[in-house]
Amino acid sequence: MENSEILKKFLQNLQQVPYLASKNLFKVASHFLEMEKDKAEFFCATLLKMKDCLVKCQNCFVWKEKDSDCVYCKRDQSVICVVETWQDMLAMERAVEFKGAYHILGGAISPLDGVGPENLNIGSLVERVKKNYIKEIILALNQTPEGEATAAFIANRLTQASSAQNHIIQITCLARGVPIGSSLEYLDKLTLNKALSERRPF
Amino acid sequence: MENSEILKKFLQNLQQVPYLASKNLFKVASHFLEMEKDKAEFFCATLLKMKDCLVKCQNCFVWKEKDSDCVYCKRDQSVICVVETWQDMLAMERAVEFKGAYHILGGAISPLDGVGPENLNIGSLVERVKKNYIKEIILALNQTPEGEATAAFIANRLTQASSAQNHIIQITCLARGVPIGSSLEYLDKLTLNKALSERRPF
Repeated sequence: MENSEILKKFLQNLQQVPYLASKNLFKVASHFLEMEKDKAEFFCATLLKMKDCLVKCQNCFVWKEKDSDCVYCKRDQSVICVVETWQDMLAMERAVEFKGAYHILGGAISPLDGVGPENLNIGSLVERVKKNYIKEIILALNQTPEGEATAAFIANRLTQASSAQNHIIQITCLARGVPIGSSLEYLDKLTLNKALSERRPF
Repeated sequence: MENSEILKKFLQNLQQVPYLASKNLFKVASHFLEMEKDKAEFFCATLLKMKDCLVKCQNCFVWKEKDSDCVYCKRDQSVICVVETWQDMLAMERAVEFKGAYHILGGAISPLDGVGPENLNIGSLVERVKKNYIKEIILALNQTPEGEATAAFIANRLTQASSAQNHIIQITCLARGVPIGSSLEYLDKLTLNKALSERRPF
């Protein structure tokens, strides 16, 4: 059974799906095998239709329906929250009452993975800043070496662009410190150091 | 974005895939959205072709290619290993040098989930035993209350069937005891009790 060419091909396809442990691939294949044929066809039709209908907004790079306007680009465009991925944006939307706009970079600068600034939506962010009146850019990148390097790179580019136009933009980042619900004894050294050096009045 | 009907539909579909945590659904959807269109089409084509090409062997219920013989039914049919699922069978094949045949039940008896003996491939197992010369049935069911109850039920049915034909079949089950690589101190009480009561000469 494990020799079936078509099963092998499907397993190879499944292998590329993120967050599926390889030990579960056979179980997922089994799920699709046991499924009624019309349900499998519906699954595929939905998948392909979704790919057809959804496009990235060319202003903020959030996925939107092809024939409708981007809901985020209708919001306050003077504050832009810059995030690495769509999932990060969704996490922000779920957690906070943010009324501004977004800009999705599509990842972080990572020379080891061959991702340079030209592979990310950084140029279009600078263009947005040049063309529109923007008060604040929130750099909500991940707290990883790549995220921090990317944030520094963007902050630099934005400062150059805005000073060339004599228009000062506030560039902020998310507060760093002790996460809510955590015990100090389990916290990493870097976070504790940051939390101490950036302490604030009680 | 989260309001897109087609995205919602796709997420609902994904939700039914086993071993995908709900917090990862957006990430998986994002994977398919970012994927090139022809790759997505290839994924769907492979999935549907797999469903078309693979059928369950009507003798042992292992998945096989429609136009070819079941490889497991060509093996020694006098020893049949009874397992709950296809995945259990694959685990057996990966782990042991077993040369006999299989019989996949399709689950275990579980009244709470509405699974009775008539929903499993038990009748066909009894038929196999009646029609063929079978020396041994290995009940390789899971060590869960459902698995053990199902094993007891099958053993009973097989004993009746074989004694009616005056043909004695050996019914065995997998050895139970201390798993290799485990420390006694972390072992559950039932396993330790079983291992002690079924102890064997060193």
